[in-house]
Amino acid sequence: MFPFTNTIKIDKEGKTPVYKQIAFAVIDAIRSGGLQAGSHLPGSRELARMLGVHRKTVIAAYDELNAQDWIVIIPRKQVAVSGRIPLLKPQKWNTSAVLPSYQNEFNLPFRKLEGNLLKEELASIPEIIIDDGYPDVRLSPIDELLKTYRSYTSRKYAIKNAHTGTGQGTIKLRETLTHYLSETRGMNISPENILITHGAQMSIYLAAQLLLGKGACIIVARPDYPVASKTFEETGAGIIEVPVDENGMDTDAIEAVCKRKRVSAVYIIPHHHYPTTVTLSVERRMKLLDLSRQYSFAIIEDDYDYDYHYTSSPYLPLASSQHNGTVIYVGSFSKILDPSLRIGFMVAPHNFIQQAVVLRKLIDVGGDGYMQNALAALIIEGELKRHLKKAKKIYHLRRDFLDKQLKEKLGPYISYTLPSGGMAVWIKLKQPYSIALLQQIHSMKVLRADEAENAFRFGFASMNEKELEDTVDLLSMEINKVHKLYPGFERPGKQSK
Amino acid sequence: MFPFTNTIKIDKEGKTPVYKQIAFAVIDAIRSGGLQAGSHLPGSRELARMLGVHRKTVIAAYDELNAQDWIVIIPRKQVAVSGRIPLLKPQKWNTSAVLPSYQNEFNLPFRKLEGNLLKEELASIPEIIIDDGYPDVRLSPIDELLKTYRSYTSRKYAIKNAHTGTGQGTIKLRETLTHYLSETRGMNISPENILITHGAQMSIYLAAQLLLGKGACIIVARPDYPVASKTFEETGAGIIEVPVDENGMDTDAIEAVCKRKRVSAVYIIPHHHYPTTVTLSVERRMKLLDLSRQYSFAIIEDDYDYDYHYTSSPYLPLASSQHNGTVIYVGSFSKILDPSLRIGFMVAPHNFIQQAVVLRKLIDVGGDGYMQNALAALIIEGELKRHLKKAKKIYHLRRDFLDKQLKEKLGPYISYTLPSGGMAVWIKLKQPYSIALLQQIHSMKVLRADEAENAFRFGFASMNEKELEDTVDLLSMEINKVHKLYPGFERPGKQSK
Repeated sequence: MFPFTNTIKIDKEGKTPVYKQIAFAVIDAIRSGGLQAGSHLPGSRELARMLGVHRKTVIAAYDELNAQDWIVIIPRKQVAVSGRIPLLKPQKWNTSAVLPSYQNEFNLPFRKLEGNLLKEELASIPEIIIDDGYPDVRLSPIDELLKTYRSYTSRKYAIKNAHTGTGQGTIKLRETLTHYLSETRGMNISPENILITHGAQMSIYLAAQLLLGKGACIIVARPDYPVASKTFEETGAGIIEVPVDENGMDTDAIEAVCKRKRVSAVYIIPHHHYPTTVTLSVERRMKLLDLSRQYSFAIIEDDYDYDYHYTSSPYLPLASSQHNGTVIYVGSFSKILDPSLRIGFMVAPHNFIQQAVVLRKLIDVGGDGYMQNALAALIIEGELKRHLKKAKKIYHLRRDFLDKQLKEKLGPYISYTLPSGGMAVWIKLKQPYSIALLQQIHSMKVLRADEAENAFRFGFASMNEKELEDTVDLLSMEINKVHKLYPGFERPGKQSK
Repeated sequence: MFPFTNTIKIDKEGKTPVYKQIAFAVIDAIRSGGLQAGSHLPGSRELARMLGVHRKTVIAAYDELNAQDWIVIIPRKQVAVSGRIPLLKPQKWNTSAVLPSYQNEFNLPFRKLEGNLLKEELASIPEIIIDDGYPDVRLSPIDELLKTYRSYTSRKYAIKNAHTGTGQGTIKLRETLTHYLSETRGMNISPENILITHGAQMSIYLAAQLLLGKGACIIVARPDYPVASKTFEETGAGIIEVPVDENGMDTDAIEAVCKRKRVSAVYIIPHHHYPTTVTLSVERRMKLLDLSRQYSFAIIEDDYDYDYHYTSSPYLPLASSQHNGTVIYVGSFSKILDPSLRIGFMVAPHNFIQQAVVLRKLIDVGGDGYMQNALAALIIEGELKRHLKKAKKIYHLRRDFLDKQLKEKLGPYISYTLPSGGMAVWIKLKQPYSIALLQQIHSMKVLRADEAENAFRFGFASMNEKELEDTVDLLSMEINKVHKLYPGFERPGKQSK
């Protein structure tokens, strides 16, 4: 007889009810070929005795197996493995065998994405994370947002409303954004020009999928925002890099490329270019628009960092100027409220938005309608504006505090241009205080460190003064260690004398 | 002189501050070529008089323009349009001109997705929506979820945690799911086999992108779940449909296809197939696994409806059986808690998950880590299980109530098989009471009506008894209208005598 007592291992402390454990074990035995079609199973009383469980437990297990067609029960007569299950090749039977189904590799052909640019996150979380420009969630009006969210989920009308139009974004949020973008960015659009996406990145992905493909070509900056570049690369398009200087992307270099090559699109971050934090000058903005007209390329304007300016006003977006409808504007609320919130948007001509919506529905059907409407309420009630005003003041202070800390404690080892806005400083390390050093500090993790540029982004907005000070102190301590280890290294400040 | 009074239209009631209105108007004039580089602007006192505003307002406008490099201010001397802005071709100047940038079509080449399968949602919301199987959000433990969510956003540690690993899903949720899937589905996996996606649809999209492409071929059911089919089609793959009968997808038909053609994948909804609600029998499950081994195809198992069974236990997923790691299992919490919540997951071998994560990061970076951890807490604390138990009881009652209502009020006009689980009934209309009729009722909208099958899905879970009764009454009234309009139509019940 089949060794039931050995096969059916019961863990009475386990979370799975005992009757289910029995049922699962029998199914495994049938599947592995240990129990064949037609094999008899012990009566419930007998099996209960063998396993040391209550008879009712075995009856529940058999009911479960019967309901799932694994066994046939003839009351008061017999229990047998169903003959309707096709015979399986008997396999070597092993009591300790676990199902190896997902332990193996998936070895059917599937597409593998090249490169390993987007590194895996660490499982352990270091003490200090220097992010690349996150907001401080502790300041955000999350309470207001969630309160409104909650009120929507409990209303009957809202239940319907939340499912309507989330593929493109709820009507309410798109109408609200129409006013919001006009007020804050001088943009003259209608709700049909807007698509709400799961973060700004989804807007970039959709634009890339629609505009690019094998044989196409897109211009990006060097150094670049790697997530965007990788997204473009993924379509099969060629990537051409042009340099960035203190006025932003070099438009003459863009022109030179256009003269020798058909360019489909230019990807640009006009405010606080990632990672360098440089802002595109007015002349270059005009030039870029001219080139776009002349060479018929699309401009993907990623203006994720529009909202935070401390010592100057933001420039109006390219999207708000006179163009031929070739500017695809991408913005985000994740950078204002909460990086986890993941509400971004795309502005483009209606026919382009329509296609983006069709593709978007295939990717994830739609967004969270309640959250979108809660965000709309936050904007309408002026709460977002109040938050921005408050946060801008605090981030401004934090930027200046970090500036002071850096000058005081790391001055000779680094160089940077304090950005007039945004949430991060792009810090270059003077040789030989290399970026590799930062990455060896185990209690700290830097989200964006660039070995080629020997530089890193220091997101200051998410840290309060105490946290900023601690972080700079840690950096200073580590650099001083290196300095002592290699006494031959002179302070760069002295070298230049 | 430039006609400032005509060009600068001020709306003192408008939301945009007056000084910004002035600045925007000047920028427009520069951009449109009306104001050329070097042109002088009136002094602040003079312009204030011309526009009828306070001088300080004009000064603020000029400061703004100056900060943005549009004008040059020589204090106490002159204000002029910056010479650093390249000359633009002067355009026909028109005071009433709005920026037409986004009113035009996007007329650069871009990819257009074929078909219009995913219809646009209505802007106006009808009184009654018959959904295709949504949960009743009013029953969901949204309060618990949001309370936990809120507590995470205010904790310092959680701020870091929420950003860690959201590309694949937070460690906490993936570990929790490992236990949850073992308990509820007998699945033996580890956290590295799990990817948390923005709804189940994103899992389907990712699997399609990795597995399929031009020249590949995938088998789906007829009738199908159109969003999935369209997703497969989008990759360029060929779609082969096989029929569905009362035991689910016809596995003999799948075998016949495999004999004549290389098949990359089979997409299957084993519980309550969408739209027909049929469950795949055990024999066919075993047969399908055998075919998958024999012909080396992947199985995309979309088990979105696993959790709701009223009169029988669910079958264990294909994914929990002995297979070669070729089953990609897709599940969802949107169907349990809230369709807006959009948390789904994919289970697959680690190497496949890794590639899916890389692609997923390009699409939307990651999910909402706070929400994922809040969901994990809901599972760990047993709240989800309690909710499922309660909801299952209520949905069971609603299913039976709808059954009674349908039999009583629409009996002669329709036919259906009451499903043993799930959240919808697939109702076939007897001719001539056509599905086209349903779509003409303006106070009602049916989310899934199928003209070829002359059938529709009646989602019962989201409606309470009153709502179910009202909906059936409306349907009944409309059908009776047709019956009276065309007296030649006999009741189908009588015809068959």
